[in-house]
Amino acid sequence: MFEEIDFIQELKSRFPPGPHVSVGIGDDGAVLHPAGQQVVVTDMLLDGRHFEIQSCSPELAGRKSVAVNLSDLAAMGCRPVAAFISVALSSGVQTPQRFLQRFYDGIEQLARHYHFTIAGGDTTSWDGPFAVNVCLTGTPFSNAPVLRSGARSGDRLYVTGPLGGSLLSGRHLTFDPRLRESEWLSGSGVVSAMMDISDGLSLDLHRLCRASEVGAEIIAEQVPVSSDVETTLSANERLSRAFGDGEDFELLFAVAPDSEAALRNAPFDLYQIGTVTAETELILSQNGAPQQLPVSGWQSF
Amino acid sequence: MFEEIDFIQELKSRFPPGPHVSVGIGDDGAVLHPAGQQVVVTDMLLDGRHFEIQSCSPELAGRKSVAVNLSDLAAMGCRPVAAFISVALSSGVQTPQRFLQRFYDGIEQLARHYHFTIAGGDTTSWDGPFAVNVCLTGTPFSNAPVLRSGARSGDRLYVTGPLGGSLLSGRHLTFDPRLRESEWLSGSGVVSAMMDISDGLSLDLHRLCRASEVGAEIIAEQVPVSSDVETTLSANERLSRAFGDGEDFELLFAVAPDSEAALRNAPFDLYQIGTVTAETELILSQNGAPQQLPVSGWQSF
Repeated sequence: MFEEIDFIQELKSRFPPGPHVSVGIGDDGAVLHPAGQQVVVTDMLLDGRHFEIQSCSPELAGRKSVAVNLSDLAAMGCRPVAAFISVALSSGVQTPQRFLQRFYDGIEQLARHYHFTIAGGDTTSWDGPFAVNVCLTGTPFSNAPVLRSGARSGDRLYVTGPLGGSLLSGRHLTFDPRLRESEWLSGSGVVSAMMDISDGLSLDLHRLCRASEVGAEIIAEQVPVSSDVETTLSANERLSRAFGDGEDFELLFAVAPDSEAALRNAPFDLYQIGTVTAETELILSQNGAPQQLPVSGWQSF
Repeated sequence: MFEEIDFIQELKSRFPPGPHVSVGIGDDGAVLHPAGQQVVVTDMLLDGRHFEIQSCSPELAGRKSVAVNLSDLAAMGCRPVAAFISVALSSGVQTPQRFLQRFYDGIEQLARHYHFTIAGGDTTSWDGPFAVNVCLTGTPFSNAPVLRSGARSGDRLYVTGPLGGSLLSGRHLTFDPRLRESEWLSGSGVVSAMMDISDGLSLDLHRLCRASEVGAEIIAEQVPVSSDVETTLSANERLSRAFGDGEDFELLFAVAPDSEAALRNAPFDLYQIGTVTAETELILSQNGAPQQLPVSGWQSF
């Protein structure tokens, strides 16, 4: 048992109000001073679903809980400002204070690296499993956030890294959210639509296309498969893992064909995987033969 | 089983972007356009702790999840703008779609009444119990938010309603967050510190005093005890319930003695319960005899 008010005081010292935050942890709410447009993202992470708290350290659980939200901000072309972290602590945890300190250690690393603060939250214990919710505010790197809905027929589709095998390899706990890439891409001004790949390329591509009211043709040979996908699998099985595994947290984005030249100077890897089409269906071309792309990937229900 | 993308589409239709929101549900994040200062509050509500989902309707669970956050905004002197709602749905729920529709019915009533929108969230199912997190943004009714930290020695302490018996009576599921009172009090310009009573008067008074670096003397006879507290109890037991039960969601606030006249025109009930003191301790005066006020009330750990 430990005193909640002392725990809150400790958090308050660790995470003082930063830029655009005048009141952080400790009152009924935080007071922010957003400069212009503000983006808000949120994700809930659950023991047994997004991590296994028995085998994963509290630091990595904290890190992932915030990193997936940073990935959402990257997808919107935004830098992080203030995080709000709610924790439902399982009453089975032997040393709750130590557990929470380590959980916040994992978060503090990200906060220092990406220059945001924790401005509020809620901590409760219960008989259920460990659960976390993070709500994160951000501000556009450039003039405006980048939405899913701006892709146009003819745009080229890109991803920022190889896909698949993230859960099996543990990469989902340690990935770097693509904020640097997002800043560069936003600054280039040529990205028409962007999102992050959290539930698998095929499902997330489906969502991007639906939001933009377009379709897509993906060239199988151009989809980068992560080295985390077992090499013992057949080429088709490996491809299917790249499409369906999810939790890659790479950026998927579209660029008009006459703007592609701007991408040549990108200081990071880019993979052109296909083209946006006017027909609202998803096509996978393999060895030049087009077929319908099955929408696999993670769904919540 | 139902399609997540259709569910999100349905929510998007029910909760279109409102004032200060240009992109709501459906992208990686929401886009807000805050006018000046913004307040952000968050609370996590857990089955078996904040409601019993087996005996309480999904509508009331939804209602309470948002209402406690509205109460936090009221405590900060703010009107609500945009809510972000994360739901961990127990896999034991037979008809998840219907359950969620009813959960959001309860929320929609509040959204219509208090003129805010749902701008984002996250919905997942898992093997754990039902859990909800709400993050809510708001904007000050007047010039600035009202903090806990502004109480000064000599200020009078008030509450907006009778206390105790909220959990037992079910009032905690149906209470009206004190937004109207908050708007009037903020507008009066005389409130030096304010918070809402969620964990019981004694614990929350302790928090307000600690934030303001002051103490308080409460007059036992002036503390309003709710009619929800059993009348079969002794006067002292009833008082102790008013101090310790929690979940009242009334406002506790301080006003300088020379500003009290401004409160006479308040279009709602007010109860003066004591005075702020320079000595940083909590005193309860009963029949004129001062004693130390025990800090009871709900603590998370």
